[in-house]
Amino acid sequence: MTIPTTMRAVVKPAPGEGLALVEVPVPAVGPDDVLIRVTAASICGTDVHIYNWDAWSAGRIKPPVALGHEFAGTVAAIGPAVDDLPVGTPVSAEGHIVMPGARHVVSGQEHLAKDMVVIGIDRPGAFADYVAVPRRNVWVNPPELDPEIASLQDPFGNAVHTVHAQPVAGRSVLITGAGLIGLMAIPVARAAGAAAVYVTDVNPRRLAMARDMGADLALDARAAPAEAVMGATGGAGVDVLLEMSGNAAAIDQGFTLLRPGGDAALLGLPGKAVEVNWSDHLVTKGATVRGIYGRRMWETWHQMRALLGTGAVDLRPLITHRYALDDFQAAFDVMRSGESGKVILRP
Amino acid sequence: MTIPTTMRAVVKPAPGEGLALVEVPVPAVGPDDVLIRVTAASICGTDVHIYNWDAWSAGRIKPPVALGHEFAGTVAAIGPAVDDLPVGTPVSAEGHIVMPGARHVVSGQEHLAKDMVVIGIDRPGAFADYVAVPRRNVWVNPPELDPEIASLQDPFGNAVHTVHAQPVAGRSVLITGAGLIGLMAIPVARAAGAAAVYVTDVNPRRLAMARDMGADLALDARAAPAEAVMGATGGAGVDVLLEMSGNAAAIDQGFTLLRPGGDAALLGLPGKAVEVNWSDHLVTKGATVRGIYGRRMWETWHQMRALLGTGAVDLRPLITHRYALDDFQAAFDVMRSGESGKVILRP
Amino acid sequence: MTIPTTMRAVVKPAPGEGLALVEVPVPAVGPDDVLIRVTAASICGTDVHIYNWDAWSAGRIKPPVALGHEFAGTVAAIGPAVDDLPVGTPVSAEGHIVMPGARHVVSGQEHLAKDMVVIGIDRPGAFADYVAVPRRNVWVNPPELDPEIASLQDPFGNAVHTVHAQPVAGRSVLITGAGLIGLMAIPVARAAGAAAVYVTDVNPRRLAMARDMGADLALDARAAPAEAVMGATGGAGVDVLLEMSGNAAAIDQGFTLLRPGGDAALLGLPGKAVEVNWSDHLVTKGATVRGIYGRRMWETWHQMRALLGTGAVDLRPLITHRYALDDFQAAFDVMRSGESGKVILRP
Amino acid sequence: MTIPTTMRAVVKPAPGEGLALVEVPVPAVGPDDVLIRVTAASICGTDVHIYNWDAWSAGRIKPPVALGHEFAGTVAAIGPAVDDLPVGTPVSAEGHIVMPGARHVVSGQEHLAKDMVVIGIDRPGAFADYVAVPRRNVWVNPPELDPEIASLQDPFGNAVHTVHAQPVAGRSVLITGAGLIGLMAIPVARAAGAAAVYVTDVNPRRLAMARDMGADLALDARAAPAEAVMGATGGAGVDVLLEMSGNAAAIDQGFTLLRPGGDAALLGLPGKAVEVNWSDHLVTKGATVRGIYGRRMWETWHQMRALLGTGAVDLRPLITHRYALDDFQAAFDVMRSGESGKVILRP
Repeated sequence: MTIPTTMRAVVKPAPGEGLALVEVPVPAVGPDDVLIRVTAASICGTDVHIYNWDAWSAGRIKPPVALGHEFAGTVAAIGPAVDDLPVGTPVSAEGHIVMPGARHVVSGQEHLAKDMVVIGIDRPGAFADYVAVPRRNVWVNPPELDPEIASLQDPFGNAVHTVHAQPVAGRSVLITGAGLIGLMAIPVARAAGAAAVYVTDVNPRRLAMARDMGADLALDARAAPAEAVMGATGGAGVDVLLEMSGNAAAIDQGFTLLRPGGDAALLGLPGKAVEVNWSDHLVTKGATVRGIYGRRMWETWHQMRALLGTGAVDLRPLITHRYALDDFQAAFDVMRSGESGKVILRP
Repeated sequence: MTIPTTMRAVVKPAPGEGLALVEVPVPAVGPDDVLIRVTAASICGTDVHIYNWDAWSAGRIKPPVALGHEFAGTVAAIGPAVDDLPVGTPVSAEGHIVMPGARHVVSGQEHLAKDMVVIGIDRPGAFADYVAVPRRNVWVNPPELDPEIASLQDPFGNAVHTVHAQPVAGRSVLITGAGLIGLMAIPVARAAGAAAVYVTDVNPRRLAMARDMGADLALDARAAPAEAVMGATGGAGVDVLLEMSGNAAAIDQGFTLLRPGGDAALLGLPGKAVEVNWSDHLVTKGATVRGIYGRRMWETWHQMRALLGTGAVDLRPLITHRYALDDFQAAFDVMRSGESGKVILRP
Repeated sequence: MTIPTTMRAVVKPAPGEGLALVEVPVPAVGPDDVLIRVTAASICGTDVHIYNWDAWSAGRIKPPVALGHEFAGTVAAIGPAVDDLPVGTPVSAEGHIVMPGARHVVSGQEHLAKDMVVIGIDRPGAFADYVAVPRRNVWVNPPELDPEIASLQDPFGNAVHTVHAQPVAGRSVLITGAGLIGLMAIPVARAAGAAAVYVTDVNPRRLAMARDMGADLALDARAAPAEAVMGATGGAGVDVLLEMSGNAAAIDQGFTLLRPGGDAALLGLPGKAVEVNWSDHLVTKGATVRGIYGRRMWETWHQMRALLGTGAVDLRPLITHRYALDDFQAAFDVMRSGESGKVILRP
Repeated sequence: MTIPTTMRAVVKPAPGEGLALVEVPVPAVGPDDVLIRVTAASICGTDVHIYNWDAWSAGRIKPPVALGHEFAGTVAAIGPAVDDLPVGTPVSAEGHIVMPGARHVVSGQEHLAKDMVVIGIDRPGAFADYVAVPRRNVWVNPPELDPEIASLQDPFGNAVHTVHAQPVAGRSVLITGAGLIGLMAIPVARAAGAAAVYVTDVNPRRLAMARDMGADLALDARAAPAEAVMGATGGAGVDVLLEMSGNAAAIDQGFTLLRPGGDAALLGLPGKAVEVNWSDHLVTKGATVRGIYGRRMWETWHQMRALLGTGAVDLRPLITHRYALDDFQAAFDVMRSGESGKVILRP
């Protein structure tokens, strides 16, 4: 395969709203790097934040930088120190790169290392024809895995990591927030043997999708879901809470419905501080609460491979739009409308 | 031993502030019960809340009821279904009684059962000559254990449960709040092999006590303790946070100083909702946070026996006052002054 | 419902081989007891041992005693201290009864208490029209659950307990021994998200059943299965070993195929001491090995309810024979032939 | 500091018994390496095996190679890619080196990776003036730590890893085998809050040392220790077994004395297969058994730092002999006599 010297990339060209498709050099391939020909990439909520140039983006992003951290592709070239990935191998990548100089890396918690460098945020991303990543961050996909589905492993990994942060087999699970990751968590919890999966949200369309994904109950968070959940659990409350909303009211409701001694996993990110009934919800409840960030390397990826490979989870219904890379603006427009599921770019 | 028909008891006689010493019948001994001659009882902060008749007390306490749940004594009589406790056996009791009708009791989490009945709150307590408790809640004390120290096992159990809720061996520990349980937690963490124990509080007297109990650093929470703690941990932050204050600022400071992927155990009870930096402190930190209530039955009690029996922990410096039961008013006065350590009543 | 005074029961009438159908009094119902009308019972390998009067049986069983500990039925009567089980409620029971006098009961490990009394072994069993059990050992079955399937929850619980003794999601699992519990473990592991399930046995019929139950590979243990398993795991070995055979050669083979740092759960019971490569298989492998006995009360039962209720596991193919209680001899004959799956008695 | 071009080293010069002191080149320092000036090294049982050229040694060692993997020293030089270790820094090293090409490395289980390269076995060791190790394997010692004690961190880490493989606080612990690591485990278990520590061995001198190190009971394994241990635990058996002997009889005795549901950690390495009562000791006991290999990187090292730094453990009594490097033959002679504790070489 001949690799060109330049390529297309969707970049944040300068501070401010919007993105641009530009011609840039194909990334250099370091000794330990793998150059990947991108075949599918999906747009993350974080990409929308960067498009909008919110406060977080303004503080973190150093333009110009190519966006895109959810992707799949094939190996196009390897650095001289890499010897095990033939050209053409289907791959994705863990987007969080622990650089050699990273501080305070704890074995088993590499995904929480400080000074992490993130693909598509701190270094060139995958809304492009090519992306280069260190070999140690490359994940080989099964050849039969659709690249569009493979590109979803970044957010799917969040869902899998959240569900598997505590035992769920034979236990009742409440998911607060039916965004895309919350929706993904439904079949993951089912596949892990959950006794029942209850979902709350305020959006009727999301609740309908939750039912389609396999929720036993999909409840309007504003319509007293407590009665239904407490009734379904015999007055005990749920064994497991998966907080996917980042919404203060949902957090309060979720912990109210968690049984004493239960487990909660927190993925949703409130935009500001929230008022919490600390004594009742966290202390005297005797709960075990786990904050979730990223995905475990590589435990979560193995779990995803099993869930997708056995057909236990089908992510296809969550993909609602597909665009060529050149049509990135349309893709972002539909993503920003709030009316889409996952939106795929095909370079 | 002849058991009288009446005895003294310190009771909440009616709604409102204050307590009274009254003559009441010695408690009846049910088939599964043990009647205990109280030899030492200590005053808990909860007893002060009941004395003051705060909102929580007004909603929970049904006067008249004898107070007192931290105590030690000797077996005075046993019910007909009890066959293994000779009169004179030194004992204490787990104050949380799981009644046969309790709902949602989970094996290994009996201390979190709903409908728990608590000695000295929901049924007659130990600020009295005698107290009756079910055999299954009785803990046999070593004969050589001083009854005053034995009476402290209720709050000491909170400290031990909090420290042992996560691994501490070889890890750095921050205790936010040097109240009596926070102070007890210092030697417990040391005995568990903590690499370092840091304590924050705002009260210089408490900080001095923290140093006496073995803290490596006892820091004024208002004087930028972050620099000292981050310096001492090489910029990593502490591995373990034990939140003992129930204070919103301390909670925020504690989680700021907790390293990513660390463990936090929460015992302190804020009186109202607190504003929490949920995203940074709980979610993306990837921490595991455990709410602590009561003591594990009987794992915590075994741990206490070992800590007290080997001399690894000496609670004696924490006892500052002793009173006869008839002088209960003086005991509560000093306790309410905030200038005491533990205050003991000797019936 | 009128309850007769006598009933049929299959008992070990006296030391020696064989069983007898006799008329006995319907069991007395103690204050805390539930009398159950048996609607289906299944024959366990242990029952065959008792039929044969092997050394273990001769040391444990005190004839005459009615056999049968795997069963389902409906509530026929309750003792005066039981207030929540209407006559007709469909139920099964945990066969291991922790009596009030049992020693050394550890919270969370009640199933391992010493001095356990077992239904159908130490007290009258369920190969009878009625069986009486303490309320605390009764499990309410969903009304829609077929009693024949419900009667299998005792051995199914062994399988579920074994699989869930360690994490299996996204991990490769090797089951050594395709007996009935080994076969049950296949769909349980699948439902728990196992990446792959490999099974070894020496019986071609059992291997065929293993494939039917969902095994990825069902391998003849005498035909060098190591190559297939090591190949399928990329040379790593399996993450999880479920030892279901009690066979020394299978144990050796299983541990040889377990990866360093993997997990093993042991259910199979060798009849005598086995030679073990202790250094390689247990010590330097750094494995975590868990002995499995019975079922967790009640965590395992909740997991079974979820697995059967959602249809994730179908046990029906494992039932090969059904007999009326009066035909117990034919039922035991086929069971003893080794050519059956599960054999059901219908009183 | 000027580094010479050659140095002394104690090497296995060729297949067969014995060692030789030879002049060899100072090791080359790779880009990521640290060259350490050895100040103290201790002789391990493994070194004696290599001296004796037993079957294991003959299969593993490729002469000539310098021995020695337990050591301490100071940084003499660093490779160009190392930037944080000033010359003179006191250091030890984790002897198990995960090379870049190592297969099947699992996060959190790096110490169990296949294809591990071990200092003093697979590459030049520390019975020499200098040793070179990769930066990632270097552990910085506190300046106040005696190099002789620091050199013991390799076996001490085995003891610490074994003790901390399960909870020990408030629990009774039986150590079978009072070899050097078994002896080290006594104060480690005490420091971790063990309720009681019992030790068995057959050597009266070892049992006396066990008492000196803090054992509650040090019992002759041939004199019916079961009665004493069962008596001391109220008939329950011990909560935790630390198997340090590798002796079949001790293994059987240890598991007999372990309570149902207890934890066992296995460090002792039998030289051949052992007969095990698999059903009683491993399966129906419901125990959790963990094989222990090496030390966790770096959790165990942090635990050691805390134990040595606080004075909770004093290893000094275990050092019985010290020799100059030139007197290596005398050092090995005393070590091989079986009459020594730890033997130190001082280059």
